[in-house]
Amino acid sequence: MTIDMQALGQQARAASRILRSQPTAAKNAALLAIADAIDAHQAAILAANAADVAAGQAAGLSPAMIDRLNLAGRLAGITADVRRVAELPDPVGVEFDARTLPNGLQVRKRRVPIGVLGVIYESRPNVTVDVAALALKTGNAVILRGGSETLRSNTALVDVIRDAIAGAGLPADAVQLIRDPDRRYVSELLRLSDYVDMIIPRGGNHLHQLCREQSTIPVITGGIGICHLYVDETADLAAALNVIHNAKVQRPTVCNALDTLLVQRSIAGQFVPAVVDRLARDGVTFRVDAETAALLAGQEGMTLAGPDDWDTEWLSLILGIRIVPDLEAAIAHIQAHSTGHSDGILTTDPAAMVRFLNEIDSAAVYVNASTRFTDGGQLGLGAEIAISTQKLHARGPMGLEELTTYKWIIVGENHIRV
Amino acid sequence: MTIDMQALGQQARAASRILRSQPTAAKNAALLAIADAIDAHQAAILAANAADVAAGQAAGLSPAMIDRLNLAGRLAGITADVRRVAELPDPVGVEFDARTLPNGLQVRKRRVPIGVLGVIYESRPNVTVDVAALALKTGNAVILRGGSETLRSNTALVDVIRDAIAGAGLPADAVQLIRDPDRRYVSELLRLSDYVDMIIPRGGNHLHQLCREQSTIPVITGGIGICHLYVDETADLAAALNVIHNAKVQRPTVCNALDTLLVQRSIAGQFVPAVVDRLARDGVTFRVDAETAALLAGQEGMTLAGPDDWDTEWLSLILGIRIVPDLEAAIAHIQAHSTGHSDGILTTDPAAMVRFLNEIDSAAVYVNASTRFTDGGQLGLGAEIAISTQKLHARGPMGLEELTTYKWIIVGENHIRV
Repeated sequence: MTIDMQALGQQARAASRILRSQPTAAKNAALLAIADAIDAHQAAILAANAADVAAGQAAGLSPAMIDRLNLAGRLAGITADVRRVAELPDPVGVEFDARTLPNGLQVRKRRVPIGVLGVIYESRPNVTVDVAALALKTGNAVILRGGSETLRSNTALVDVIRDAIAGAGLPADAVQLIRDPDRRYVSELLRLSDYVDMIIPRGGNHLHQLCREQSTIPVITGGIGICHLYVDETADLAAALNVIHNAKVQRPTVCNALDTLLVQRSIAGQFVPAVVDRLARDGVTFRVDAETAALLAGQEGMTLAGPDDWDTEWLSLILGIRIVPDLEAAIAHIQAHSTGHSDGILTTDPAAMVRFLNEIDSAAVYVNASTRFTDGGQLGLGAEIAISTQKLHARGPMGLEELTTYKWIIVGENHIRV
Repeated sequence: MTIDMQALGQQARAASRILRSQPTAAKNAALLAIADAIDAHQAAILAANAADVAAGQAAGLSPAMIDRLNLAGRLAGITADVRRVAELPDPVGVEFDARTLPNGLQVRKRRVPIGVLGVIYESRPNVTVDVAALALKTGNAVILRGGSETLRSNTALVDVIRDAIAGAGLPADAVQLIRDPDRRYVSELLRLSDYVDMIIPRGGNHLHQLCREQSTIPVITGGIGICHLYVDETADLAAALNVIHNAKVQRPTVCNALDTLLVQRSIAGQFVPAVVDRLARDGVTFRVDAETAALLAGQEGMTLAGPDDWDTEWLSLILGIRIVPDLEAAIAHIQAHSTGHSDGILTTDPAAMVRFLNEIDSAAVYVNASTRFTDGGQLGLGAEIAISTQKLHARGPMGLEELTTYKWIIVGENHIRV
């Protein structure tokens, strides 16, 4: 059966017009109803998910993919997150920049929902619930497009979510799912500019590229992090070792994990072997420049870096290591290879800190901390819809406020322009 | 000679990396140098412009186009604007949202330049100077693409601007011009996503459409205003007549001029003839619904509105008039036909004001004022690069702050994520 994407868009737009003027209490009631309904329908949701998992295993999906797909034991955490979103402050309706102009015109801005979001994602069905909750909280309708491998899980979740929203007196069309894995619906969604205001891709480089190429709707690209740490000769080396270990090893499969370590030459002879020794114990292998290779001749797990390696997001227990003469060379390397996600310096030199913070133009720039903190929850946003690495609208972790826009409100006493 | 757009992009990116860390004083000095240089080179600039004007006349451009093209008598105003931009506060470097997280991590945001802007515009060569000044003030490099009919003027202006920037010790490549009218360079610019961070089209619907379709870079669309005023039965009708006259007649060729007047039925018999009488004296003609036509049977300058007329931006002395039963019908008409630029209500009923402000989702929503105030200068921004009618990044008039983004700065004491 063909999906009428125009109709889907119109329904989402109509729902967004009702949603946008709902009081916070009504939106929160719907969120709690969703959490309760997921709890009540656990059995059906987990059965659908088990069918996705079985099909995925039969199709030969990797254990990592199967793990991302699997909801078993995770629903309680998911509904707890929905209840937490209900408790967050509502950014919609907040007024700011209010002033009275010299001619007496009263001008202010009011924070309002964006309208209709299109979210395209891959194998994690928990994203379905997260995104629906964040959209609803901010008065936005959403059209979801999950991966084909999670269609049964997403269908079960969205059915429960829509019923709960309707039961709470809000339009079920606030949350819609493209219930067909055919890729042409992704292309159609990207061109629904009459009805969709913002596209958020959550997936790999290929998906972001596709959205940039095809979309006539503004796209928030991001989530690709080739992250760097530079250790200068003044750094507290024992502490630096911990930070590097954390940035690489704590969760290597995510975008804010460390990809490339840059070490100042004057400390490389002492520090690089220490790094390799510490990280190799946790299974890390290394892609290194010729100088590092010479320094560590004979060490296992060491490969000379190829020309593309400095531009690769490892998402695994691989670390690039390069020795550089100084801060200037480190900055040049980062400017050439960073995706603008998260980059940091480990140093005790205040001048180096200032220069690094000024010259590195990434969404998150760090001094003496692990890159793993680039995360809406870690940075106090209370929630996260995506991490933007483009520069318009929002940069870095995006929370509730980043799902809103504003309108100008201008109140006069029959003012005319002269 | 073929333009190497990749090289243009690389040069702009390199210039932007120098510009972004310049102190305000250095940028202001370059702005004043530009203003002085334009004053000093008036004769050459005006000669180039006169050649454009002559060629335009020979090619049969309309008097309105020729007027927009003509710089004669306007350079002093243009350089005064550049000097005013130098006096505006610099948004770059401002830090905000600073806090210390419970784990001791210090987090703040810092306002930074966007990087490289691509600006595509049509016949007004003053835009060349305006945009160069606003970009420089905010630490952005810019690639300009003006209309073919202004190429001589733009070349003369950009040569003077680049020399002045270099003379002030900043990189001349901060301002680049695509010196070839071939349209393929527009398409190439729209795909220079490795080097350009934001596209601002300034022109008609066709240009905005082209940018949305072709660009792989975020585009700020806007500047198309189908603007509405709704007059309800409680309005001060004498004052309303002035506001409507101002919104339609004061400058009919611009995007914030009134396109469609909606009048509540209960006052239409009295008020619509008064509007027509007042505006017809200034040459306004009318596209009206059947009810208005019946009310004004026999009146000159009255045409029954066709199906596309409610979706037309008139940019001339034409006004659509439609009689509606009530506020709900007025809101429904605006939701169906507004481009989301500027829409207002004329009323003395507080409940109607609140409902209109809540339900109309345009960049600027008015109560008892002319739509002509949607303008960066009028609303106190000090400058304006564009008026956005899309919802991401910025909405309505965009000033200096809207030419910046932010980065997160995170300073720890060797913090690791647990």
